Amino acid sequence: MEENSRPLDALNAARGKSVLVDLKNGTRFVGKLKAFDIHINVVLDEAEEHKDGEVKRKLGTVFIRGDTIIILSPA
Amino acid sequence: MEENSRPLDALNAARGKSVLVDLKNGTRFVGKLKAFDIHINVVLDEAEEHKDGEVKRKLGTVFIRGDTIIILSPA
Amino acid sequence: MEENSRPLDALNAARGKSVLVDLKNGTRFVGKLKAFDIHINVVLDEAEEHKDGEVKRKLGTVFIRGDTIIILSPA
Amino acid sequence: MEENSRPLDALNAARGKSVLVDLKNGTRFVGKLKAFDIHINVVLDEAEEHKDGEVKRKLGTVFIRGDTIIILSPA
Amino acid sequence: MEENSRPLDALNAARGKSVLVDLKNGTRFVGKLKAFDIHINVVLDEAEEHKDGEVKRKLGTVFIRGDTIIILSPA
Amino acid sequence: MEENSRPLDALNAARGKSVLVDLKNGTRFVGKLKAFDIHINVVLDEAEEHKDGEVKRKLGTVFIRGDTIIILSPA
Amino acid sequence: MEENSRPLDALNAARGKSVLVDLKNGTRFVGKLKAFDIHINVVLDEAEEHKDGEVKRKLGTVFIRGDTIIILSPA
Repeated sequence: MEENSRPLDALNAARGKSVLVDLKNGTRFVGKLKAFDIHINVVLDEAEEHKDGEVKRKLGTVFIRGDTIIILSPA
Repeated sequence: MEENSRPLDALNAARGKSVLVDLKNGTRFVGKLKAFDIHINVVLDEAEEHKDGEVKRKLGTVFIRGDTIIILSPA
Repeated sequence: MEENSRPLDALNAARGKSVLVDLKNGTRFVGKLKAFDIHINVVLDEAEEHKDGEVKRKLGTVFIRGDTIIILSPA
Repeated sequence: MEENSRPLDALNAARGKSVLVDLKNGTRFVGKLKAFDIHINVVLDEAEEHKDGEVKRKLGTVFIRGDTIIILSPA
Repeated sequence: MEENSRPLDALNAARGKSVLVDLKNGTRFVGKLKAFDIHINVVLDEAEEHKDGEVKRKLGTVFIRGDTIIILSPA
Repeated sequence: MEENSRPLDALNAARGKSVLVDLKNGTRFVGKLKAFDIHINVVLDEAEEHKDGEVKRKLGTVFIRGDTIIILSPA
Repeated sequence: MEENSRPLDALNAARGKSVLVDLKNGTRFVGKLKAFDIHINVVLDEAEEHKDGEVKRKLGTVFIRGDTIIILSPA
């Protein structure tokens, strides 16, 4: 059991893998987690924007400002 | 009586146990508390998203940004 | 007369006693104040959630994130 | 004329006196200013909550989180 | 021409003079600027609260929390 | 090409010139940029407030709190 | 594979190139990324404001306050 694991460890484990990112405005991004920082600013590669369950646009690389994020999770 | 106990002590006591996390947007997550930090960023394992009392989706591991959280409580 | 008393002194005086906590989303929690910190993160024991004057659920221990709180007061 | 007076000086001058505190959610508290800090966290004694010009409840001592406050003024 | 003048210089120049202060909730205060700090917390003397172009109440001294303010301007 | 230019350099270049400032509440101010700081608090001279494309009032000097600002641009 | 890349590296790679910037109020700006800082304050050159898929106005240089930004992406 990993005692004292920290939240950013979970993000680090997801680096290079596919994640979903849900935003406060109801948008979801799905893409490969390329980078993050302590503010939870996030960069995704091969990113798709989803709205109401549909792909709305494909964005390639996207920088998401951390304060708009609700959750991140492996996709 | 434990005088001077701090709020994060309660989170620490819940580590590895099942908790519910209610968010400002009305969503609830239930899962096993794996990690947290001073911003109340939280990582749950075996996480389920609930909305209006129903399980909406199962997410495995989820990182929840602290500033979206209203409460955490043992589930 | 206690000149220069500070707001956290009032929280300290309420430690171990029953308090009500009103949140920005209109929810009220009533419980025994177990812990707090400078962000006004709060832990209640034997906590009840009230909504529109009725007990909505009993939660045992609850961690409340400080930035969701409007007021705390002895119950 | 007191040049260079600071906003907290005005709060200090009101200590022990009756003040009104208007909150962002439209609620007003009236009570005796017991304590405040640099975040404008405030403690009132003999506090009454007003809504739409009527006394809604009497609370005794109340801790008000600073970020919910719009104004304070002698009552 | 004063190069490198700073925003707080403008507030300092208004000290002791009549100013209007517009808040995020649509309220306007008009009064004599007595004090301010780097958070733009402001104290007005002989303050009047205006709403929809009418004087709603006279408050004497009022402490306005900076994060509720949109603009200040000589009245 | 100016590598590593910083956002505040653009504000500095606009000092003394006419700019428009759009606020989160839908208001626009147009005036001469007199001062700014790292919080993007801004002072305009000869300022006009616009709403829905019309000049609503002329304000002379106006201090605008940075956290209400969306964009600044040469007018 | 670039381990430990940081979010601002992605912004740096976009310097001098065309980007889109989506704001919390539903507005999109498209322009050449000239400058940014750790707050994600951004300066675009040759900027266009889009709303509901149409060009609403051309702004030349625009300073965008970071806390209004949701995402940035190559355009």
